[in-house]
Amino acid sequence: MIKGIPLDETRTRVSRFTETFPPEMMGAVLSDDQYIYYLCAFHFIPTERPIMLVITREGERILFVPRLEEEHAKQASHADRVVSYPEYPGEVHPLKLFVKLLEELGLGQGTLGIDYDGYPHVLGYQGPVLSELISNPLRRMHPELDRLIAVKSPFEIELIRESCRWGNLAHRLLQKYTRVGEIETEVSMRASQEATRIMVETLAPYHKSNSRWQEGAVAGYRGQIGRNSSVPHAVGANLIFKEGDVLVTGAASAVWGYLSELERTMIIGTPTAKQKTYFDHMIAVQDIAFESMRAGVTASSVDQAVRQYFSKHHLEPYWRHHTGHSISMRYHEGPYLDTGDHSILEAGMVFTVEPGIYDPEVGGFRHSDTVMVTEQGVEFLTYYPRDLESLTLPV
Amino acid sequence: MIKGIPLDETRTRVSRFTETFPPEMMGAVLSDDQYIYYLCAFHFIPTERPIMLVITREGERILFVPRLEEEHAKQASHADRVVSYPEYPGEVHPLKLFVKLLEELGLGQGTLGIDYDGYPHVLGYQGPVLSELISNPLRRMHPELDRLIAVKSPFEIELIRESCRWGNLAHRLLQKYTRVGEIETEVSMRASQEATRIMVETLAPYHKSNSRWQEGAVAGYRGQIGRNSSVPHAVGANLIFKEGDVLVTGAASAVWGYLSELERTMIIGTPTAKQKTYFDHMIAVQDIAFESMRAGVTASSVDQAVRQYFSKHHLEPYWRHHTGHSISMRYHEGPYLDTGDHSILEAGMVFTVEPGIYDPEVGGFRHSDTVMVTEQGVEFLTYYPRDLESLTLPV
Repeated sequence: MIKGIPLDETRTRVSRFTETFPPEMMGAVLSDDQYIYYLCAFHFIPTERPIMLVITREGERILFVPRLEEEHAKQASHADRVVSYPEYPGEVHPLKLFVKLLEELGLGQGTLGIDYDGYPHVLGYQGPVLSELISNPLRRMHPELDRLIAVKSPFEIELIRESCRWGNLAHRLLQKYTRVGEIETEVSMRASQEATRIMVETLAPYHKSNSRWQEGAVAGYRGQIGRNSSVPHAVGANLIFKEGDVLVTGAASAVWGYLSELERTMIIGTPTAKQKTYFDHMIAVQDIAFESMRAGVTASSVDQAVRQYFSKHHLEPYWRHHTGHSISMRYHEGPYLDTGDHSILEAGMVFTVEPGIYDPEVGGFRHSDTVMVTEQGVEFLTYYPRDLESLTLPV
Repeated sequence: MIKGIPLDETRTRVSRFTETFPPEMMGAVLSDDQYIYYLCAFHFIPTERPIMLVITREGERILFVPRLEEEHAKQASHADRVVSYPEYPGEVHPLKLFVKLLEELGLGQGTLGIDYDGYPHVLGYQGPVLSELISNPLRRMHPELDRLIAVKSPFEIELIRESCRWGNLAHRLLQKYTRVGEIETEVSMRASQEATRIMVETLAPYHKSNSRWQEGAVAGYRGQIGRNSSVPHAVGANLIFKEGDVLVTGAASAVWGYLSELERTMIIGTPTAKQKTYFDHMIAVQDIAFESMRAGVTASSVDQAVRQYFSKHHLEPYWRHHTGHSISMRYHEGPYLDTGDHSILEAGMVFTVEPGIYDPEVGGFRHSDTVMVTEQGVEFLTYYPRDLESLTLPV
């Protein structure tokens, strides 16, 4: 049973990160909540109050938090030290107190790695940028961090597998409860609630979602119902299911901060010839993507293979987006399976594979599976049926 | 019945925004999804694909979106024009295409207002900052926008009232289902699902959550149960309720993007003398905050009055955070009821009022109410009982 993020895991991440420091870099200062979770396992609610993680060249981790997070950070994070400030905006601006901390830590000079130049203005935060307050040369390190995050450890793969398991359950229930006349939101909440309850009871007491994006297991439609399914990023609209609807689903669960992605195209009642044709194209083009993936090829080559299929079958008018994206703690992350992304796939990268076909007159057709790249090809982490028969709902 | 954000509403917002432009400013370029929703009613799922809103001096709104959002933006936004780019990263980086669009719009020179310098690196996005690509002087306009957002229109107040109504229902159900032996997550999901179902059926077909933060009505504990309630920003931990627990709740609903905040301290079984003492202090100090608020006073003076109460009653060791924050589309926003925030309260501002007392040996004590500032004082938008008797759960 997974009991949380082990200390060894984040220590390894930190040392891989400090290895990317150029010789003149004395430390790094990060304010992105996802990077902070990755490097010291501290999950928190981001607010206007800056939270910053300092990582020294030697790999020491110092968390700078508002007073209200002090006990929480000491209890829940892997930081070696937690330093708190009273409040934001407070009598002295937290960023000024942070600069004092940097001096105390011997980081008053020398290059510093950063993600943002100071705390980004989330939720009404206002304040000086870091480069106004200190004279250290700054260097953006988010590309290095994103490269590290892209290749998953065996432990991370295990978390993503666990996420797929409960996403699968939520999807199964979603399919079961979706019937003509039911309302989108209700079916989605019923399936999500039941799957979450079972997940929590099964894993109890060892489960936390620890995700900024979702709590528990979730399955739903986000408004991708009937012709509205031709809008790839539709948003929830309380639609009512009717016979003939094309449906595009989405399911996942959050497990110690890790996500996965399972999406299926389903049809209510006997599919029309046109629906069947698009469905078959969608399966064929997703297969092409799977077959073109393995360690050593470029991300762009996978998308190019997909685009060639669109072109050959005159489907370009129905193309809307690239083939897929990486996924772990963030619901989208790089590299992307996109013609413009020339990253080399490596074993241990995890991608969604989800080329979609969208005809405003008919609907949207997209399956999304989460797969791990191996030396030989891909290994499926999601395992839901993909065929039309399994995805046709009775009326 | 509220049927969405009216066109007049966002037009008024845009003209109030352009009135803040200094004479040399030709237009503004915004990439924050909340500002975009505020100014053109477009709610979308933020991803690695840049979405930018251009507002000209004359108040014309041009939305720059990836191909997959084109139909959605045309259908759902108030933009005068929607321009799409193929994909991110794509064969040509979207920010380069955006710079061409600026030239076409006659914005190739002159000062431009911005929120971020280019698209912020969310979800693995990488790209040049805007100031590397254009020579226009740039000026950060998020303080102006946050000031506009702080004072709510009558329509926005109506939305927040509607949010309070369904948050109230979700909280009522949460209280009803919370019993010794039940598990946090399940009680929370049951109450949230039932409240959302009733909300959706009641408002049907006129309801969308349109919120980045939550879907429907939600009530829960976020792990603030028993001694863990002394951690103000605890996160969900699947705790099981037991007799004697102090509980801190949170409830809200999302209505066309607008939120509210209702939090209550509850006790399972007969309160101890110590619990009662802290509860009484918490009510007294929240009353002090309400009484010190009205148009014309500073935000800091409200927090100072609260801090004086803490000091007079030797409660400083149990202080953790400021008195409250503004709220509308974002769950926290400025101004803040904080000793360091010298903003003047204006009629139509909406604040949470939530001074809290946290004793690690006993638990946390915090009610949060959402109130509107008036010339004379405050008007309550939340309306849940505040007294200990109403908030004591049977065993």
